[in-house]
Amino acid sequence: MIRVGIFGYGNLGRGIENAIRQNPDMELVAVFTRRDPSTLTIGTDGVTVAHASDVADYKDKIDVMILCGGSATDLPVQTPELAKMFNVVDSFDTHAKIPEHFENVDNAAKEGSNVAMISVGWDPGMFSLNRLYASAVLPEGKDYTFWGKGVSQGHSDAIRRIEGVLDAKQYTIPVENALEAVRSSSEPELTTREKHTRECFVVAKEDADKARIEKEIKEMPNYFADYDTTVHFITMEELKRDHSGIPHGGFVIRTGKTGANKENNHVIEYSLKLDSNPEFTASVIVSFARAAYRLSVKGEYGCKTVFDIPPALLSIKSAEEIRKELL
Amino acid sequence: MIRVGIFGYGNLGRGIENAIRQNPDMELVAVFTRRDPSTLTIGTDGVTVAHASDVADYKDKIDVMILCGGSATDLPVQTPELAKMFNVVDSFDTHAKIPEHFENVDNAAKEGSNVAMISVGWDPGMFSLNRLYASAVLPEGKDYTFWGKGVSQGHSDAIRRIEGVLDAKQYTIPVENALEAVRSSSEPELTTREKHTRECFVVAKEDADKARIEKEIKEMPNYFADYDTTVHFITMEELKRDHSGIPHGGFVIRTGKTGANKENNHVIEYSLKLDSNPEFTASVIVSFARAAYRLSVKGEYGCKTVFDIPPALLSIKSAEEIRKELL
Repeated sequence: MIRVGIFGYGNLGRGIENAIRQNPDMELVAVFTRRDPSTLTIGTDGVTVAHASDVADYKDKIDVMILCGGSATDLPVQTPELAKMFNVVDSFDTHAKIPEHFENVDNAAKEGSNVAMISVGWDPGMFSLNRLYASAVLPEGKDYTFWGKGVSQGHSDAIRRIEGVLDAKQYTIPVENALEAVRSSSEPELTTREKHTRECFVVAKEDADKARIEKEIKEMPNYFADYDTTVHFITMEELKRDHSGIPHGGFVIRTGKTGANKENNHVIEYSLKLDSNPEFTASVIVSFARAAYRLSVKGEYGCKTVFDIPPALLSIKSAEEIRKELL
Repeated sequence: MIRVGIFGYGNLGRGIENAIRQNPDMELVAVFTRRDPSTLTIGTDGVTVAHASDVADYKDKIDVMILCGGSATDLPVQTPELAKMFNVVDSFDTHAKIPEHFENVDNAAKEGSNVAMISVGWDPGMFSLNRLYASAVLPEGKDYTFWGKGVSQGHSDAIRRIEGVLDAKQYTIPVENALEAVRSSSEPELTTREKHTRECFVVAKEDADKARIEKEIKEMPNYFADYDTTVHFITMEELKRDHSGIPHGGFVIRTGKTGANKENNHVIEYSLKLDSNPEFTASVIVSFARAAYRLSVKGEYGCKTVFDIPPALLSIKSAEEIRKELL
């Protein structure tokens, strides 16, 4: 049994807890929280809930610690710290800061002789893998990533900060025509506006100026100004009834050419359609936690990404079984 | 530079030759043929064409030998034989015999301290990888593989063996309704007939009994009897004009459930749309040839499949570059 710890118990942490139940070679040993542990009820009976500050006591009781904090402030500190004590997996997703995070975690993991996997999930994660495989197979071609239809937490939060807004949900939606243009192998150059639209469902205060709110949303730099944005004002009841899920997904497409005269086109497409973004992310993380543990047992250590993992290590099945059943 | 040899110069061998040109860290050193080498003109200037029986002379001149023979009779003999002398990659695709082939090649590769990669291409190959990743990530779910639209060489050959047939091309076509049913997460049980249809373009001899030919095709056991098959009689000119390509492709879809009560559905879909089946297969093989070479340089040996290869080894880019650009 692979003994797993969960560090941080939000949506992702709960997803990890559920995912562990689907993997019979894993057991959840403890959940660590910065809250008062006595106030936290988790979904699995008989599992310790401990304070984050006591984590060092679990050094020999946990094979892999899964970090469920945020990329902005939690993981840059927590992953290096915990990688000194445990094999760890995180889902660090600030793409631009990955090289720096890798460096910090690598040093810590080497100090502790642990395996530390960073940036595991679907993007970064499964999408990254597909970008890598496709570009290695078709060196002369072009990559496209589309996101959605799905909820962007960051964009929803940005709307909620506008004066007069009680709550909001923002969906990122890939533009169907852009997808079709990419699939045609024409290698189009697409602007931000051409790739995605943004649809916002907003609950405003009763006396709020909706026209002003809509204008503030649509003109918000970085978040909305470069997109065609639609704003719907709805009631709190409608928001809760119709928009309480956290779906997401997207497409990684590479088109490329082969042949003596580059006369043949090829389209490689990978897509995800997810009812729950955090639960799917958790499911990916748990499979890579297995790989991290197995690498550690082999004596490897240091920081790893999804690119470094032989896929066979992800599966609960033996090498013979996967060759027979899946090859 | 990775020095590559091609063993067998048919459609796949020519595809390998073209793919090597797209990979600036590789050079083609020699092409080996069982024909009289003086009769073979290849597409690359200055490359040796040698007889297959002289291959041992190239032991120290080639880093990876790519085997381009057929799975029925060539590869079961050639791959083990050559794995004693070279790092090799083959595209052995008789799924049921992979365990036996693996065993034979593994023994030979260990004897020669070489890396031998078997069953590389898109199915087995990229499709296998996607079946593995998806099933590891979503343990509670169901896998589906659809092929096409594309030319099946085996089915085309089967039609050509019918009395009165001059030439023929057969397309395997996935049934759109079946794809939609799978994508709906309903986990349908699909019969052979429900998944694919077969469309045949046949050139008959002038005096041939077309009704008999059509009946023989449609009732042919294993090949056509279990499918809804359409037969079109066309002229040799039409066949050459409209059906001379070797397109193929397909879909690997896994749907699975997560959540405390399995309330969330997820769809993972990978698809290929290929203008040239052999050229795409060749492109996959060449990227894995790079990995085979790198593993060998690290001192590894024995038989490997796509499941054993850390994806980073496939890319011409450095680990730092792929983390920065693709993660």
